[in-house]
Amino acid sequence: MGSLSRTDTELPSWRPGPARDAIETFVKAARDVPKSHRIAVFDNDGTLWCEKPLYVQQAFLGFELADAVRAKPELASRPEYRALIEHDEKAQADLGLPRIAEALLELNAGATPEEFEQRVGEFMASQRHPDRDVPYAQTVYRPMLELMETLRHNDFQVFVVTGGGTEFVRAVSGELYDVPPSDVIGTLIEYEYSEGPVLRRTAKPLGDVNEGPPKVKNIQAMVGRRPIFAAGNSGGDRAMLDYVTAGPGPSMAMLIDHDDSEREYAYESRSVTLGEQESIVETGRQADWTVVSMREDWSTIYG
Amino acid sequence: MGSLSRTDTELPSWRPGPARDAIETFVKAARDVPKSHRIAVFDNDGTLWCEKPLYVQQAFLGFELADAVRAKPELASRPEYRALIEHDEKAQADLGLPRIAEALLELNAGATPEEFEQRVGEFMASQRHPDRDVPYAQTVYRPMLELMETLRHNDFQVFVVTGGGTEFVRAVSGELYDVPPSDVIGTLIEYEYSEGPVLRRTAKPLGDVNEGPPKVKNIQAMVGRRPIFAAGNSGGDRAMLDYVTAGPGPSMAMLIDHDDSEREYAYESRSVTLGEQESIVETGRQADWTVVSMREDWSTIYG
Repeated sequence: MGSLSRTDTELPSWRPGPARDAIETFVKAARDVPKSHRIAVFDNDGTLWCEKPLYVQQAFLGFELADAVRAKPELASRPEYRALIEHDEKAQADLGLPRIAEALLELNAGATPEEFEQRVGEFMASQRHPDRDVPYAQTVYRPMLELMETLRHNDFQVFVVTGGGTEFVRAVSGELYDVPPSDVIGTLIEYEYSEGPVLRRTAKPLGDVNEGPPKVKNIQAMVGRRPIFAAGNSGGDRAMLDYVTAGPGPSMAMLIDHDDSEREYAYESRSVTLGEQESIVETGRQADWTVVSMREDWSTIYG
Repeated sequence: MGSLSRTDTELPSWRPGPARDAIETFVKAARDVPKSHRIAVFDNDGTLWCEKPLYVQQAFLGFELADAVRAKPELASRPEYRALIEHDEKAQADLGLPRIAEALLELNAGATPEEFEQRVGEFMASQRHPDRDVPYAQTVYRPMLELMETLRHNDFQVFVVTGGGTEFVRAVSGELYDVPPSDVIGTLIEYEYSEGPVLRRTAKPLGDVNEGPPKVKNIQAMVGRRPIFAAGNSGGDRAMLDYVTAGPGPSMAMLIDHDDSEREYAYESRSVTLGEQESIVETGRQADWTVVSMREDWSTIYG
């Protein structure tokens, strides 16, 4: 097999090596797959953009909380918010994640989809990554953008499958990834329908948090076909990566290993929701996934 | 305003008149809408293809039932199936629609998505419309195909929003409408996830039947943006049609009026699920929707 021509894969930020070879081999093999089955899914946090020191959506919720407290100072005494404002980890643990999450979701309850999108836009335009001091849009991994573009160039439909809030990611996916809102699959919120008609956010999630097996079920509900490519970085992506490789024909499962303490962070991503104890990198090596070393395989990290 | 050039709208099956003019005016106005907001949604049964004398999915379920009884004759004595096989309307009414629907859903329970798609393919390849004696694929309305194509040519993303089973419509949407499975929004079924991983259908619906206000909520969940064009034909589409026109900027709501007893059927489509008593055609006229007369506005009905 000769190598692909320049117009087939454009992966300048990928160093020559096994990960890049695996992509090129897969893209070539996928040409035998009908175009309507060339479906690729990417996890978001830690796979397409930086998730440290905290998830970008957590930073957004902090931004919303600060704004709400400015407008209504008495909110600061509500236990869930106080625990966050005072960084009181014991109080946070005592209250529990579900109660804190619901209190945070209440900050945007009542918003129409358009109003919520506007809020995320204001956050993205004004806030910066705490360690790198750049807008969050500049914490996207450039090699992954090149990979998405290469797949699209080869007639793949590219989806983002995130544990985060569907609408939070939709508000940024067009600008960051060239992925339209309809191709983002995440954790949904329940909407209230009233005459107008108008839709308003509630503080109640709709269905399961989109981590683990629910990622597979939600891919079926929203895409309707088994993807042949998946990329992830945590235990929350394991079911989705397994699902992709369990199908017939060519497939590729890619795991991003955060092993670059100089240019990014060195850590092993665990699923918060699933509380997984396994080493996902070890699982990936045993399962014959393509484990991508950020340190070795990427010449550039940020775009 | 001059008329559109031939390459902009190709609507040869639409007779000159108010409906065709309204489409051309809307398509021109939509050029001022950002491409990412050019979203069009179409109901399926009675809007894109014929729904009489019974929904195509009902014919499919009859096909599945006949097949199951051939393989296992004792099934014919199960009350829900017997009422259907013997066309016993009183027994059907006594059992009630939910119980009959669940019994029918059980016929495909346990199937993987791929197996289910295969079954629908066998049905479509072997069965014919009872009155017209043609394959069901030939009961698609040609003017609506031209309209979908015109919208796509003007950078619209086109979705099918059906009260029917999501996967049933997905199995045919590519071939019939050039709409990929991911762009079909319907009534979902719950899947069972097990190690493999493998997904298998259950007999339980997931969420609401996709009629009325749930159509609007599911558009938000699966598309994430308010469409600017919607077409429907029954009370089950009313909320969706209202939602589209309640947004800012150019929009179009289209209602198909089945008034052609010679070439199709003459009837007013009511929502089975919502039990609506209103005349949707009257509602459409008062609401300034574009009411399409199949008899007057379409020179050809079938493709």
